[in-house]
Amino acid sequence: MPLIQVDLDRALFEEKGKQISDAIHAAQLEVPEMGIPATDKFQLFRPRDAGELVFDPGHGGVDRRSIVIIQITAVRRFPVRLKQALFEKIITRVAEVGLRTDDIFISFIENGFEDWKAGLPSAATS
Amino acid sequence: MPLIQVDLDRALFEEKGKQISDAIHAAQLEVPEMGIPATDKFQLFRPRDAGELVFDPGHGGVDRRSIVIIQITAVRRFPVRLKQALFEKIITRVAEVGLRTDDIFISFIENGFEDWKAGLPSAATS
Amino acid sequence: MPLIQVDLDRALFEEKGKQISDAIHAAQLEVPEMGIPATDKFQLFRPRDAGELVFDPGHGGVDRRSIVIIQITAVRRFPVRLKQALFEKIITRVAEVGLRTDDIFISFIENGFEDWKAGLPSAATS
Repeated sequence: MPLIQVDLDRALFEEKGKQISDAIHAAQLEVPEMGIPATDKFQLFRPRDAGELVFDPGHGGVDRRSIVIIQITAVRRFPVRLKQALFEKIITRVAEVGLRTDDIFISFIENGFEDWKAGLPSAATS
Repeated sequence: MPLIQVDLDRALFEEKGKQISDAIHAAQLEVPEMGIPATDKFQLFRPRDAGELVFDPGHGGVDRRSIVIIQITAVRRFPVRLKQALFEKIITRVAEVGLRTDDIFISFIENGFEDWKAGLPSAATS
Repeated sequence: MPLIQVDLDRALFEEKGKQISDAIHAAQLEVPEMGIPATDKFQLFRPRDAGELVFDPGHGGVDRRSIVIIQITAVRRFPVRLKQALFEKIITRVAEVGLRTDDIFISFIENGFEDWKAGLPSAATS
């Protein structure tokens, strides 16, 4: 149950939001060792207006012109190499839909298996 | 000091935001073993527009038609059974105000006692 | 790479967003022991409308009239005293631009060095 939250420029979201969503989900499936099923898709997009994204244009040696902040919350169970593989895949896939790789910013947060509840069948409570 | 962040459909927020807020807070108090006082109420609602909530409708065996993403940040001190009790109470209470239980999505993140600062009396800085 | 996310009243953001941003960044640099370079500036502002910020006005012994929710995600490497020094500096600096210190709410979340990816030079993928 990764939850993927994306804050990005509103114009970019309006132009390519669906493509970015598909690209991130494809990336997740392209690291099959993570064992995330294709149906495990939970994403949240938050378009941002002028002045709401504040960033240094060159920190880390890149040429940042905007920023797409991708925050991934997932269960603590992936080794570093799989997280890095996921980051690389995301960057590759969103670049294919036209994003600048310099502008991608990813932060990964971990919790436990017991820290999730993804719905309860209504029948169970009725 | 749990901080509860809720991203949900804008129409749902406009119709029932206050009721959902009250329901979540009531749930928190209905797990008295957590020891959260009634005044410990910090919630953040972020209404979402079309295309901003992306989810699989059936993952996990539920019949998801929309999604209400509830992210809870709290101090690491609750055993699994209390977190699960809280999740169940939240689902029960928001169902009572008309939400579909299939549509509730909860993620719990933990930090330390020292990771919070909830205001400073102005007198202390003047 | 701290990522700083701020949810706050829209009118306050429109009036003082840039000043608040500068104040928070200045605070970060005023705890030099944290070792965060001046270019390490990644902030996200999310203006909130009526009813979206829900809080208890007096919890914790302060006189809260609104709330400015500052969430900091950073690598787990700072001792408690440095985190507390950062909180104090943030509160001091945003007070200087006119915010009420009672209204500041800070939550700090930690992850690992390997949980970040701040852009990739486009040249590397082209």
